Amino acid sequence: MASKKPVRASTCPINASLEVLGDRWSLLVVRDLMFAGYRTFNEFLNAGEGMATNVLTDRLAKLTDAGILTKKPDPEDGRKWLYGLTRKGLDLAPVLLELSRWGTKYEHGIPPAGVLDAYEADRAGFLGELKRRHG
Amino acid sequence: MASKKPVRASTCPINASLEVLGDRWSLLVVRDLMFAGYRTFNEFLNAGEGMATNVLTDRLAKLTDAGILTKKPDPEDGRKWLYGLTRKGLDLAPVLLELSRWGTKYEHGIPPAGVLDAYEADRAGFLGELKRRHG
Repeated sequence: MASKKPVRASTCPINASLEVLGDRWSLLVVRDLMFAGYRTFNEFLNAGEGMATNVLTDRLAKLTDAGILTKKPDPEDGRKWLYGLTRKGLDLAPVLLELSRWGTKYEHGIPPAGVLDAYEADRAGFLGELKRRHG
Repeated sequence: MASKKPVRASTCPINASLEVLGDRWSLLVVRDLMFAGYRTFNEFLNAGEGMATNVLTDRLAKLTDAGILTKKPDPEDGRKWLYGLTRKGLDLAPVLLELSRWGTKYEHGIPPAGVLDAYEADRAGFLGELKRRHG
Protein backbone atom coordinates (compact mmCIF):
# COMPACT_ATOMS: atom_id res chain seq x y z
CA MET A 1 0.00 0.00 0.00
CA ALA A 2 2.79 2.36 0.96
CA SER A 3 3.91 3.92 -2.26
CA LYS A 4 0.81 3.21 -4.31
CA LYS A 5 -1.92 5.80 -4.37
CA PRO A 6 -4.30 4.58 -1.68
CA VAL A 7 -7.86 3.65 -2.51
CA ARG A 8 -10.06 5.52 -0.09
CA ALA A 9 -13.56 4.77 1.05
CA SER A 10 -14.52 8.44 0.73
CA THR A 11 -13.29 11.74 -0.69
CA CYS A 12 -13.52 13.43 2.72
CA PRO A 13 -10.27 15.33 3.37
CA ILE A 14 -10.60 14.77 7.14
CA ASN A 15 -10.73 11.02 6.57
CA ALA A 16 -7.89 11.24 4.07
CA SER A 17 -5.70 13.01 6.62
CA LEU A 18 -6.57 10.58 9.39
CA GLU A 19 -5.84 7.58 7.17
CA VAL A 20 -2.34 8.91 6.53
CA LEU A 21 -1.69 10.04 10.08
CA GLY A 22 -3.04 6.83 11.57
CA ASP A 23 -2.92 6.74 15.34
CA ARG A 24 -1.57 9.18 17.90
CA TRP A 25 2.04 8.00 17.69
CA SER A 26 2.54 9.49 14.25
CA LEU A 27 1.44 12.92 15.38
CA LEU A 28 3.65 12.68 18.47
CA VAL A 29 6.70 12.06 16.26
CA VAL A 30 5.77 15.07 14.13
CA ARG A 31 5.34 17.10 17.33
CA ASP A 32 8.81 16.09 18.57
CA LEU A 33 10.43 17.09 15.29
CA MET A 34 8.49 20.31 15.03
CA PHE A 35 8.62 21.72 18.54
CA ALA A 36 11.26 19.79 20.51
CA GLY A 37 13.82 19.72 17.71
CA TYR A 38 14.40 15.99 18.04
CA ARG A 39 15.95 14.31 15.02
CA THR A 40 16.97 10.75 15.95
CA PHE A 41 15.28 7.44 16.75
CA ASN A 42 16.48 7.47 20.35
CA GLU A 43 15.28 11.01 20.91
CA PHE A 44 11.77 10.08 19.71
CA LEU A 45 11.86 6.88 21.75
CA ASN A 46 12.71 8.73 24.96
CA ALA A 47 10.25 11.57 24.42
CA GLY A 48 8.24 10.57 27.47
CA GLU A 49 5.06 8.92 26.28
CA GLY A 50 6.45 5.39 26.27
CA MET A 51 6.33 4.54 22.58
CA ALA A 52 7.49 0.97 21.85
CA THR A 53 10.49 0.57 19.54
CA ASN A 54 8.57 -1.50 16.98
CA VAL A 55 5.79 1.09 16.87
CA LEU A 56 8.32 3.89 16.40
CA THR A 57 10.09 1.99 13.61
CA ASP A 58 6.78 1.45 11.84
CA ARG A 59 5.60 5.05 12.19
CA LEU A 60 8.90 6.54 11.02
CA ALA A 61 8.75 4.37 7.89
CA LYS A 62 5.12 5.29 7.20
CA LEU A 63 5.67 9.00 7.76
CA THR A 64 8.74 8.99 5.51
CA ASP A 65 6.88 7.04 2.87
CA ALA A 66 3.97 9.51 3.06
CA GLY A 67 6.34 12.40 2.35
CA ILE A 68 5.93 13.89 5.82
CA LEU A 69 9.47 13.15 7.02
CA THR A 70 12.88 13.24 5.40
CA LYS A 71 15.60 10.81 6.41
CA LYS A 72 19.34 11.07 5.81
CA PRO A 73 22.47 9.55 7.35
CA ASP A 74 23.88 11.43 10.31
CA PRO A 75 27.13 13.03 9.02
CA GLU A 76 28.69 12.45 12.45
CA ASP A 77 27.67 8.79 12.71
CA GLY A 78 26.76 7.01 9.49
CA ARG A 79 24.97 4.23 11.35
CA LYS A 80 22.32 6.67 12.52
CA TRP A 81 19.55 8.43 10.63
CA LEU A 82 18.59 12.04 11.04
CA TYR A 83 14.93 12.79 10.43
CA GLY A 84 13.46 16.09 9.36
CA LEU A 85 10.09 17.54 8.36
CA THR A 86 9.10 18.20 4.77
CA ARG A 87 6.87 21.12 3.89
CA LYS A 88 3.97 18.67 4.04
CA GLY A 89 5.03 17.73 7.57
CA LEU A 90 5.48 21.35 8.64
CA ASP A 91 1.99 22.09 7.34
CA LEU A 92 0.65 19.86 10.11
CA ALA A 93 1.54 22.65 12.57
CA PRO A 94 -2.01 24.09 12.69
CA VAL A 95 -3.44 20.62 13.42
CA LEU A 96 -1.00 20.14 16.31
CA LEU A 97 -1.56 23.65 17.65
CA GLU A 98 -5.35 23.19 17.64
CA LEU A 99 -4.95 19.83 19.40
CA SER A 100 -2.75 21.59 21.92
CA ARG A 101 -5.33 24.29 22.50
CA TRP A 102 -8.10 21.74 22.99
CA GLY A 103 -6.02 19.53 25.29
CA THR A 104 -5.04 22.56 27.35
CA LYS A 105 -8.64 23.69 27.72
CA TYR A 106 -10.23 20.31 28.37
CA GLU A 107 -7.65 17.67 29.26
CA HIS A 108 -5.32 19.30 31.79
CA GLY A 109 -2.49 19.60 29.27
CA ILE A 110 0.25 22.15 29.97
CA PRO A 111 1.64 23.76 26.80
CA PRO A 112 5.09 25.38 26.62
CA ALA A 113 4.74 28.95 27.93
CA GLY A 114 3.59 31.48 25.37
CA VAL A 115 3.26 29.18 22.37
CA LEU A 116 -0.52 29.19 22.03
CA ASP A 117 -0.75 32.93 22.70
CA ALA A 118 1.89 33.64 20.07
CA TYR A 119 0.04 31.48 17.54
CA GLU A 120 -3.28 33.11 18.34
CA ALA A 121 -1.86 36.62 18.08
CA ASP A 122 -0.22 36.11 14.68
CA ARG A 123 -0.83 32.79 12.98
CA ALA A 124 0.91 33.59 9.72
CA GLY A 125 3.94 35.03 11.51
CA PHE A 126 4.15 32.05 13.86
CA LEU A 127 3.99 29.51 11.02
CA GLY A 128 6.46 31.50 8.91
CA GLU A 129 8.96 31.53 11.77
CA LEU A 130 8.49 27.78 12.29
CA LYS A 131 9.25 27.15 8.61
CA ARG A 132 12.31 29.40 8.72
CA ARG A 133 13.64 27.46 11.70
CA HIS A 134 13.16 24.14 9.91
CA GLY A 135 14.19 25.55 6.50
CA MET B 1 -10.26 3.89 33.28
CA ALA B 2 -13.31 5.53 31.76
CA SER B 3 -14.62 7.84 34.45
CA LYS B 4 -11.45 8.08 36.52
CA LYS B 5 -9.05 10.88 35.83
CA PRO B 6 -6.50 9.27 33.54
CA VAL B 7 -2.87 9.02 34.53
CA ARG B 8 -0.84 10.42 31.67
CA ALA B 9 2.74 9.78 30.69
CA SER B 10 3.31 13.48 30.02
CA THR B 11 1.70 16.88 30.52
CA CYS B 12 1.78 17.61 26.79
CA PRO B 13 -1.63 18.88 25.70
CA ILE B 14 -1.20 17.38 22.22
CA ASN B 15 -0.65 13.96 23.76
CA ALA B 16 -3.54 14.53 26.17
CA SER B 17 -5.88 15.29 23.26
CA LEU B 18 -4.69 12.32 21.24
CA GLU B 19 -5.11 9.97 24.20
CA VAL B 20 -8.76 11.01 24.52
CA LEU B 21 -9.47 11.06 20.80
CA GLY B 22 -7.75 7.73 20.21
CA ASP B 23 -7.81 6.62 16.61
CA ARG B 24 -9.37 8.11 13.51
CA TRP B 25 -12.84 6.65 14.08
CA SER B 26 -13.55 8.93 17.01
CA LEU B 27 -12.83 12.04 14.97
CA LEU B 28 -14.95 10.74 12.10
CA VAL B 29 -17.94 10.38 14.43
CA VAL B 30 -17.38 13.94 15.66
CA ARG B 31 -17.14 15.07 12.04
CA ASP B 32 -20.46 13.39 11.16
CA LEU B 33 -22.23 15.04 14.07
CA MET B 34 -20.65 18.41 13.43
CA PHE B 35 -20.91 18.80 9.68
CA ALA B 36 -23.29 16.13 8.33
CA GLY B 37 -25.86 16.53 11.09
CA TYR B 38 -26.00 12.80 11.77
CA ARG B 39 -27.43 11.84 15.16
CA THR B 40 -28.01 8.06 15.24
CA PHE B 41 -25.95 4.87 15.36
CA ASN B 42 -27.09 3.80 11.88
CA GLU B 43 -26.28 7.16 10.37
CA PHE B 44 -22.71 6.99 11.71
CA LEU B 45 -22.42 3.37 10.61
CA ASN B 46 -23.41 4.20 7.04
CA ALA B 47 -21.30 7.33 6.75
CA GLY B 48 -19.14 5.79 4.06
CA GLU B 49 -15.81 4.87 5.62
CA GLY B 50 -16.81 1.35 6.58
CA MET B 51 -16.65 1.52 10.36
CA ALA B 52 -17.40 -1.81 12.04
CA THR B 53 -20.39 -1.92 14.42
CA ASN B 54 -18.28 -2.98 17.42
CA VAL B 55 -15.81 -0.16 16.78
CA LEU B 56 -18.64 2.36 16.51
CA THR B 57 -20.23 1.08 19.74
CA ASP B 58 -16.91 1.42 21.53
CA ARG B 59 -16.12 4.90 20.23
CA LEU B 60 -19.60 6.27 20.99
CA ALA B 61 -19.25 5.04 24.59
CA LYS B 62 -15.76 6.51 24.96
CA LEU B 63 -16.71 9.86 23.43
CA THR B 64 -19.80 10.10 25.64
CA ASP B 65 -17.76 9.16 28.69
CA ALA B 66 -15.15 11.81 27.80
CA GLY B 67 -17.85 14.50 27.73
CA ILE B 68 -17.55 15.04 23.99
CA LEU B 69 -20.96 13.61 23.07
CA THR B 70 -24.39 13.75 24.67
CA LYS B 71 -26.82 10.83 24.40
CA LYS B 72 -30.56 10.82 24.95
CA PRO B 73 -33.48 8.60 23.95
CA ASP B 74 -35.04 9.45 20.59
CA PRO B 75 -38.47 10.95 21.45
CA GLU B 76 -39.92 9.30 18.34
CA ASP B 77 -38.48 5.84 19.07
CA GLY B 78 -37.45 5.11 22.64
CA ARG B 79 -35.30 2.15 21.54
CA LYS B 80 -32.93 4.51 19.72
CA TRP B 81 -30.40 6.98 21.05
CA LEU B 82 -29.84 10.43 19.65
CA TYR B 83 -26.31 11.73 19.97
CA GLY B 84 -25.22 15.34 20.08
CA LEU B 85 -22.06 17.39 20.62
CA THR B 86 -21.20 19.09 23.88
CA ARG B 87 -19.33 22.39 23.92
CA LYS B 88 -16.17 20.31 24.39
CA GLY B 89 -17.07 18.36 21.25
CA LEU B 90 -17.89 21.48 19.26
CA ASP B 91 -14.53 22.92 20.26
CA LEU B 92 -12.91 20.19 18.17
CA ALA B 93 -14.07 22.10 15.07
CA PRO B 94 -10.69 23.84 14.51
CA VAL B 95 -8.87 20.49 14.72
CA LEU B 96 -11.20 18.98 12.10
CA LEU B 97 -11.00 22.04 9.86
CA GLU B 98 -7.20 22.04 9.93
CA LEU B 99 -7.19 18.29 9.15
CA SER B 100 -9.54 19.05 6.27
CA ARG B 101 -7.27 21.77 4.96
CA TRP B 102 -4.22 19.52 5.11
CA GLY B 103 -6.01 16.55 3.54
CA THR B 104 -7.30 18.78 0.75
CA LYS B 105 -3.83 20.17 0.03
CA TYR B 106 -1.86 16.93 0.30
CA GLU B 107 -4.12 13.88 0.20
CA HIS B 108 -6.57 14.51 -2.65
CA GLY B 109 -9.46 15.14 -0.27
CA ILE B 110 -12.44 17.08 -1.57
CA PRO B 111 -14.05 19.31 1.06
CA PRO B 112 -17.66 20.53 0.85
CA ALA B 113 -17.69 23.63 -1.35
CA GLY B 114 -16.89 26.88 0.40
CA VAL B 115 -16.36 25.52 3.91
CA LEU B 116 -12.61 26.05 4.17
CA ASP B 117 -12.78 29.47 2.53
CA ALA B 118 -15.53 30.55 4.91
CA TYR B 119 -13.48 29.37 7.89
CA GLU B 120 -10.35 31.10 6.64
CA ALA B 121 -12.16 34.37 5.96
CA ASP B 122 -13.78 34.61 9.40
CA ARG B 123 -12.83 31.95 11.93
CA ALA B 124 -14.70 33.41 14.87
CA GLY B 125 -17.84 33.95 12.80
CA PHE B 126 -17.68 30.46 11.35
CA LEU B 127 -17.28 28.81 14.76
CA GLY B 128 -20.00 30.99 16.29
CA GLU B 129 -22.44 29.98 13.55
CA LEU B 130 -21.55 26.30 14.06
CA LYS B 131 -22.30 26.60 17.77
CA ARG B 132 -25.59 28.37 17.10
CA ARG B 133 -26.65 25.56 14.78
CA HIS B 134 -25.84 22.93 17.39
CA GLY B 135 -27.10 25.10 20.29
